[in-house]
Amino acid sequence: MPHFKECHDSVRPKDVGLLAMEIYFPSMFVDQMKLEEFDGASPGKYTKGLGQLQMGFCSDNEDINSLCLTVLANLMKKNDISYADIGRLEVGTETIIDKSKSVKSVLMKLFEDSGNFDVEGIDTTNACYGGTNALFNALSWVESSSWDGRYAVVVCGDIAVYSEGNARCTGGAGAIAMLIGPNAPLVVEPGVRSTYMRHAYDFYKPDLTSEYPIVDGKLSVQSYITALDNCYLNYCKKAKNKFHMEHEFSLRDFDFMVFHSPYCKLVKKSLARLALNDFLQNRTIYYTEKDQRNFSNLDNFRAKDLKSSIFDKEVETAFMSASTAMFQSKTENSLTIASRVGNMYTPSLYSCLISTLINHSSSELSGRRIGLFSYGSGLAASMFSMKVCAVEDSARKAKLQKLLHGISDTVSRLDNRQEVSPQEFADALKLRADTHLKCDYKPSMSPDNIFPGTYYLTEVDAKFRRFYARKPLPAQNGHVTNGH
Amino acid sequence: MPHFKECHDSVRPKDVGLLAMEIYFPSMFVDQMKLEEFDGASPGKYTKGLGQLQMGFCSDNEDINSLCLTVLANLMKKNDISYADIGRLEVGTETIIDKSKSVKSVLMKLFEDSGNFDVEGIDTTNACYGGTNALFNALSWVESSSWDGRYAVVVCGDIAVYSEGNARCTGGAGAIAMLIGPNAPLVVEPGVRSTYMRHAYDFYKPDLTSEYPIVDGKLSVQSYITALDNCYLNYCKKAKNKFHMEHEFSLRDFDFMVFHSPYCKLVKKSLARLALNDFLQNRTIYYTEKDQRNFSNLDNFRAKDLKSSIFDKEVETAFMSASTAMFQSKTENSLTIASRVGNMYTPSLYSCLISTLINHSSSELSGRRIGLFSYGSGLAASMFSMKVCAVEDSARKAKLQKLLHGISDTVSRLDNRQEVSPQEFADALKLRADTHLKCDYKPSMSPDNIFPGTYYLTEVDAKFRRFYARKPLPAQNGHVTNGH
Repeated sequence: MPHFKECHDSVRPKDVGLLAMEIYFPSMFVDQMKLEEFDGASPGKYTKGLGQLQMGFCSDNEDINSLCLTVLANLMKKNDISYADIGRLEVGTETIIDKSKSVKSVLMKLFEDSGNFDVEGIDTTNACYGGTNALFNALSWVESSSWDGRYAVVVCGDIAVYSEGNARCTGGAGAIAMLIGPNAPLVVEPGVRSTYMRHAYDFYKPDLTSEYPIVDGKLSVQSYITALDNCYLNYCKKAKNKFHMEHEFSLRDFDFMVFHSPYCKLVKKSLARLALNDFLQNRTIYYTEKDQRNFSNLDNFRAKDLKSSIFDKEVETAFMSASTAMFQSKTENSLTIASRVGNMYTPSLYSCLISTLINHSSSELSGRRIGLFSYGSGLAASMFSMKVCAVEDSARKAKLQKLLHGISDTVSRLDNRQEVSPQEFADALKLRADTHLKCDYKPSMSPDNIFPGTYYLTEVDAKFRRFYARKPLPAQNGHVTNGH
Repeated sequence: MPHFKECHDSVRPKDVGLLAMEIYFPSMFVDQMKLEEFDGASPGKYTKGLGQLQMGFCSDNEDINSLCLTVLANLMKKNDISYADIGRLEVGTETIIDKSKSVKSVLMKLFEDSGNFDVEGIDTTNACYGGTNALFNALSWVESSSWDGRYAVVVCGDIAVYSEGNARCTGGAGAIAMLIGPNAPLVVEPGVRSTYMRHAYDFYKPDLTSEYPIVDGKLSVQSYITALDNCYLNYCKKAKNKFHMEHEFSLRDFDFMVFHSPYCKLVKKSLARLALNDFLQNRTIYYTEKDQRNFSNLDNFRAKDLKSSIFDKEVETAFMSASTAMFQSKTENSLTIASRVGNMYTPSLYSCLISTLINHSSSELSGRRIGLFSYGSGLAASMFSMKVCAVEDSARKAKLQKLLHGISDTVSRLDNRQEVSPQEFADALKLRADTHLKCDYKPSMSPDNIFPGTYYLTEVDAKFRRFYARKPLPAQNGHVTNGH
């Protein structure tokens, strides 16, 4: 049982943020270069054009419940936390397989042995934004008068699949769990988050008979960039005020900047877009003389405005070029998972956070500010920031190292996945489509290929009730364990 | 712009709760006695057996978006609030017509003119519990470091329809909006709410091609009562501690007790069930000598236990009889709307709160504690309480009167609905079923019969995009207004 709760009833706990993270992605992937060839797309369309290397996917024996069961069980076990110590658990997802029963209610199966059923929170949905909403709600709960000293957990997960054609290569699948509490090594900075929500039909899923969305690609990019502009403008204002800064807040004040990644190329464009925002507002965007030189020959763009430049290729090219060094230092490292798993929807942004953390040492991260931009079509978007504790803070430094240790196996897990051919990938998606919403059904894919410790679907009975098993974890001391 | 925010950054605002409420229910209803006859059910089955008088329903020109647009627009207008003054808006619903795009994103259409898009919150789902989760999140946000001094709004709405047969008479439809902020006349008491969440297949909607749920009626009652027992036990413990009470917390400490109402008879059983809980725990459950007499001849039930008595008719009858007077004083008044509109799902509990408020004067409500039990199948449940400000508190008394004034037209609006025959009701539900999930479709029901100020669906285009219009409000000063 955690014993955080020392504060007076009317005073909020401090430094609320992330104490641990866990990621799950499927064990199978398809190579994007081979997919280009298979699809008859022009060479480089998916790889150079979209910035994607590989794409993870699930067969018919995984669903949103199994993904979330897996990532939650792994988070709890790795961090040696009792289910009795969780006071809140919320799930963000847009992979809806039941219009009423939440994924959260299925996750409560894991709590049975602990006897703890006093766990607030249900599911939350708006496209890829659900994880962020769940995170904000968890942070607020810890700061609220209803907090009882226990941890909150945020789970976000999705299976992103598209009908055959242009968009299919932008799929992905995965889940992330985050442990939330006060005195965290990764603090979500209070009072600065800014939000932009508006009605749009850029990407939506009104055909409930299909797993596939309806996508208006151009409107989606326009909506993403408009939301980014608005959130950034608002964040900068709030941050200048909140942090009592003498200069205007600008990109130089984010040591790292991570974005929701529908595909990696949009992320690179987005950083360039923030540079354009700074440039048009006459903010100082560079650290170095070299950066200064990069932006110095852009004066012919002074008269541009944000709204009309969204699809202005000349502006885009110029600012992507000028911001290349900034991209390399602030953002490129965030794409390790996104480029190799694809768009996981709600977990996408948090996979970029994990990638940033695993690509740096704790001393490189010490005291750094990470900017985060979350986007969900429809649309809902927020910009917020996290601050890594300083290595001089010995109590929190140990927590930071624990957090980093927990995700340190990510790349080896990515490397240990099994590559399948584009044809096998297409077959698996056809199998998913053919069996989508079926009842009285047993998945035909065997669990042989999934990772140990993974939950998988064993049956959907005649009343649509779903049943799961867990693939045993590797033998420990000669015993096979199911991880409980 | 509200100017609440006076408190120090690390101190929470006080007395967070409800500042205003608004309810919408459809303009058409069917009489339950006529429905019994139409269905060939035994006389009294729906009326006496379930406690239902009438049932509201929607035709094909209303959907979850239109219901929520209506109730939000009416809340804002009645209370003369600017859309710029809302910092958070969350929707609780289980009426899913898009797996990705939230109802909240559609409600942002109402914010366009204000230019305010910095509005946190999306949709939240677990059966009838979504409204309560949205409320808890709104309360936490106001108490959090991210609160910016603006109001939060909670919207919950649903259209509850069942396939032909036993359960159809337990449908309903409606939406409720609640305005949330500090220094409220109706305070949600902090630190006492208790929750019970568990995995169950009592009621769920896995067939995404249909509007209808799958229901296991017996399991649903068992799940509801088990959740009630657990939430009450836990609430009593927390309340005794939080309120520094010398006696054990019991029913006598709730001046009013309201419940999620799938049908009114279950609510009466539920109050009796709380009396049984008190009785088995040897708590004092009565105010008066008469109450004492009512419970005095129940000693032969001392050896009963909660778990095995859920379907024990003898226990149920004895405690329903003994608690009749308590039901009349604490709960019966909460069923005005539920008995005449039916189960609205997420708004059901809050309709019972409104009914309690409209059936009492502000002096009868002064300083009273209202217990609330929220249940959503699957399952998620919470018990919590609200305290009405004392009439001596002049600043808040004015707010209470404003809140009460806002809902004072409820009964006249119920009375002004149009009764339709069971056959017309069955035809409307067939029309809904036949056109469910259709695109390239214009509703065939004319908006002639809906209430003024109501939004209605005008078209679902070939890309499933939905379009709405608003029926004009009555002429004011000779002008017809659309309410914006």
